[in-house]
Amino acid sequence: MCEANAYLMEKDEPRLVMEAVDKVEPVEDGLRLENIFGEQKFFKARIHSLSLVDHKVFLAAE
Amino acid sequence: MCEANAYLMEKDEPRLVMEAVDKVEPVEDGLRLENIFGEQKFFKARIHSLSLVDHKVFLAAE
Repeated sequence: MCEANAYLMEKDEPRLVMEAVDKVEPVEDGLRLENIFGEQKFFKARIHSLSLVDHKVFLAAE
Repeated sequence: MCEANAYLMEKDEPRLVMEAVDKVEPVEDGLRLENIFGEQKFFKARIHSLSLVDHKVFLAAE
């Protein structure tokens, strides 16, 4: 499985906000994240960058 | 290895633009993609969505 952990970029350092993320999709007011267990979270953010071999997705608050 | 294939979303269907992508980072005028072989490509695009278990990163032209 090639899921990743999602981090929200904050002032000091990235904060882990969701593990085992499969899908990230734009919604009206930000992003919908869905992990491999079917759990969903919403963030007022955009996808900032990816480091896939490290299993990391970085989000930036809008 | 958990690299992914990058697709640029076009009118008809997504077009594969780079395989085995590791890193995606914002640059001044778009995105820099780097694959696991160290090759780089630049696109005037943003990250649209992710489907990581399917190893897919979707880009949308700016």
